[in-house]
Amino acid sequence: MKQFTVFIALIFLSIPIFAQSVLPTSHQNDAEAIIKASIEDEIGFERLTYMGDMFGPRFSGSENLEDAIDWIVEEMRSDGFDKVWTQAVKVPHWVRGNESVSLNSPVKRNLPMLGLGGSIGTPADGITGEVLVVKSFEELENRSDEAKGKIVLFNVKFTSYGQTVTYRVNGASEAAKHGAIASLIASVASYSIQTPHTGVMQYEEGITKIPHAAITVEDALLMQRLSDRGEQIEVTIKMEAETLPDADSRNVIAEITGSEFPDEIIVLGGHIDSWDVGTGMMDDGGGSVASWQALKLIKQLGLTPKRTIRVVLWTNEENGLAGGNEYKRWVEEDEKSLENHVLAMESDGGVFDPIGFGFSGSDAAFNILTEIGKTLKTIESGVVSKGGGGADIGPLMRSGVPGMGLQVDGEKYFWFHHTDADTIDKLNIDDFNECVATMAVFAYGVANLNETLPRK
Amino acid sequence: MKQFTVFIALIFLSIPIFAQSVLPTSHQNDAEAIIKASIEDEIGFERLTYMGDMFGPRFSGSENLEDAIDWIVEEMRSDGFDKVWTQAVKVPHWVRGNESVSLNSPVKRNLPMLGLGGSIGTPADGITGEVLVVKSFEELENRSDEAKGKIVLFNVKFTSYGQTVTYRVNGASEAAKHGAIASLIASVASYSIQTPHTGVMQYEEGITKIPHAAITVEDALLMQRLSDRGEQIEVTIKMEAETLPDADSRNVIAEITGSEFPDEIIVLGGHIDSWDVGTGMMDDGGGSVASWQALKLIKQLGLTPKRTIRVVLWTNEENGLAGGNEYKRWVEEDEKSLENHVLAMESDGGVFDPIGFGFSGSDAAFNILTEIGKTLKTIESGVVSKGGGGADIGPLMRSGVPGMGLQVDGEKYFWFHHTDADTIDKLNIDDFNECVATMAVFAYGVANLNETLPRK
Repeated sequence: MKQFTVFIALIFLSIPIFAQSVLPTSHQNDAEAIIKASIEDEIGFERLTYMGDMFGPRFSGSENLEDAIDWIVEEMRSDGFDKVWTQAVKVPHWVRGNESVSLNSPVKRNLPMLGLGGSIGTPADGITGEVLVVKSFEELENRSDEAKGKIVLFNVKFTSYGQTVTYRVNGASEAAKHGAIASLIASVASYSIQTPHTGVMQYEEGITKIPHAAITVEDALLMQRLSDRGEQIEVTIKMEAETLPDADSRNVIAEITGSEFPDEIIVLGGHIDSWDVGTGMMDDGGGSVASWQALKLIKQLGLTPKRTIRVVLWTNEENGLAGGNEYKRWVEEDEKSLENHVLAMESDGGVFDPIGFGFSGSDAAFNILTEIGKTLKTIESGVVSKGGGGADIGPLMRSGVPGMGLQVDGEKYFWFHHTDADTIDKLNIDDFNECVATMAVFAYGVANLNETLPRK
Repeated sequence: MKQFTVFIALIFLSIPIFAQSVLPTSHQNDAEAIIKASIEDEIGFERLTYMGDMFGPRFSGSENLEDAIDWIVEEMRSDGFDKVWTQAVKVPHWVRGNESVSLNSPVKRNLPMLGLGGSIGTPADGITGEVLVVKSFEELENRSDEAKGKIVLFNVKFTSYGQTVTYRVNGASEAAKHGAIASLIASVASYSIQTPHTGVMQYEEGITKIPHAAITVEDALLMQRLSDRGEQIEVTIKMEAETLPDADSRNVIAEITGSEFPDEIIVLGGHIDSWDVGTGMMDDGGGSVASWQALKLIKQLGLTPKRTIRVVLWTNEENGLAGGNEYKRWVEEDEKSLENHVLAMESDGGVFDPIGFGFSGSDAAFNILTEIGKTLKTIESGVVSKGGGGADIGPLMRSGVPGMGLQVDGEKYFWFHHTDADTIDKLNIDDFNECVATMAVFAYGVANLNETLPRK
């Protein structure tokens, strides 16, 4: 109990007048109740674990994804939310098929690899060619005359995801512009134990499409050394990858209807699809189930938010964003609905130890959220920083909805991201439950404000 | 220069009389010269890198291993040692072939795996069976009636290598005793990014041989959870593994002949073979090349040890120890040679940041080695602790030769051990060079003692 006493004292000392008038007086007690229920919960993490274990990866177009969605809908119905429904979404349907990269010379080895999502395949007997190793688009530009007829390997050192991922997304077309017949990248990873990482890639309109795959950081470094030594490197790439007609998927939606302002909506969620490797527990099963669990605890505690709290588990974030786009399109069908979206919250950085939220919106809203954050002091997850959001809520945010993304201790996130090792054992129930508490306290806090969160 | 002044001052202050009479007065200058030459060297690490890149893994019975040995012998001859030769050794010849483990139910997935060295294969269509998951031999014993006709998975948490490896070595026969048709282990690993680890296994005489393979820590945990949930788990194991007739390999030996006591030998080395995955840079290319490089620097500096310093790169440590055994057998051919082996030194824990040596021998010898260790103070790698040795020098040690094993910061060693990720990028030249300096200073120090290292 001691920590709660200290906690209450701190709250009283720290809430300034302006926020007290906006935050209902009950908020601190409600926040405490949410935190307590969250940190004692076992059901949320067990649901996440079960989903990973029993359905496997949930890739757009796969039966796994739709089976997992069926299960979630059924479970959500048993949770007794006011509404549970799904929203039909057409999603891209890329299939990997069998694939391999073999180093033929100067040494023979099969290289661990993953084709990149959206890539075309190779002919059945593969594409064999000499490798040109470059460290950047600039180097490729400077060595353009060496690229023709070769397989370009982008051996790019991971700096940040944002900086490095461009080689995964755009590498194939950039290589094709210089006459390459296929392209490879060093996996976009901050650490590797010979671990290939997949992810989405894109072809530039009007540029010849060539196959594009990721090898491991280790093997990219090997080829760099071989190249630096003047060795001629030959590899064979075989990929059965192909893009099938769009498939049917769904966004999953559940809500507690607001008691005073049912049309005003706080939306929170994650994306329910994953890549086709691992079980997508970090990316983004955790964010999805934590959002769901946040709603469940609010319901379970008998709390009655003034505004509607809606969980959306978006489909197809990974290779299309069709779920996020479709949700926003549907929202816009109702003239006032977009305006009535008070706040959009997303968790897509792994349910590791939470720090708080990165918020994009007005300063007045930022100040209110900062006050709500203080009620999370006991679990140190209430820091609100400026700037942030998420891919799925991006379409809403670009239409003026304030948005924020859960921030966590993501030190190891890019060790596992888009790999076969994105599995439940990398997470733990305490961090997960703190993520649940953090999402629930912010969502409920905003849903219960005396005045709506100001857009300006 | 400042650090060398401090260093010299410390040496004068710290060498007690007894050791001064045994260590020649020139030792501190020689040690300084060795350290300086080591830390400035680029050739040793480049040779290690080249060996990994150009020959790949060096498994007993493979062409890779013999090609690497040919290259080493040639390079050693160019180094100008007094003697370079090889010693014929018959080695076991196990071949992996194609292999896979698939989880059939309750979910379908291909599981990353590595068959264990020495295992028999399966029929061509594999072995399919229900999985019994146990956490220990004790649990298997208690659930013996459930094991018959099943595939036993030992999901054993890594505590120490010594404690956990018994499930890899003995798991198959223990499972077979209870009627199992095949056995699996969680990889013996202190960390995993879905990384399977291979290693040697053994069959107990008179017990039915069953196939034995490692899956990843993650997938073993998955099966544990499925089992705990009451799910029936079915897998199919396919392994083409087989043991061919013994193959020809060699120990590689090079030496600088002692100027005063040529028959007295300080032997140092590592094992030149590796597993058939990765490139065996930690295990034990690094120890091999560091030992060789230590001898090279002594030669290069024009130092003339009183006793013979001999480098031995033993073959077949991983799955037979044929090299270590053959070396000892050969030594014993000469009545006095075993007695003349003053000290045996081995590096087989990865050439990470060195700490010193673990020594098994007399207290008098320990005290002298401790004094020699003090001359490594500038690179903090001279701590001699009691107890230690190595697999390859084990046969010598069991016949009375004092032995010691290089101790390093091995925190991550079992992240990579026996995996495809045992590659050069996990090491760095500074640590490697400090390992070289440490081995060279101890070897040269003992070779140059005024009196031989006392056995008693």
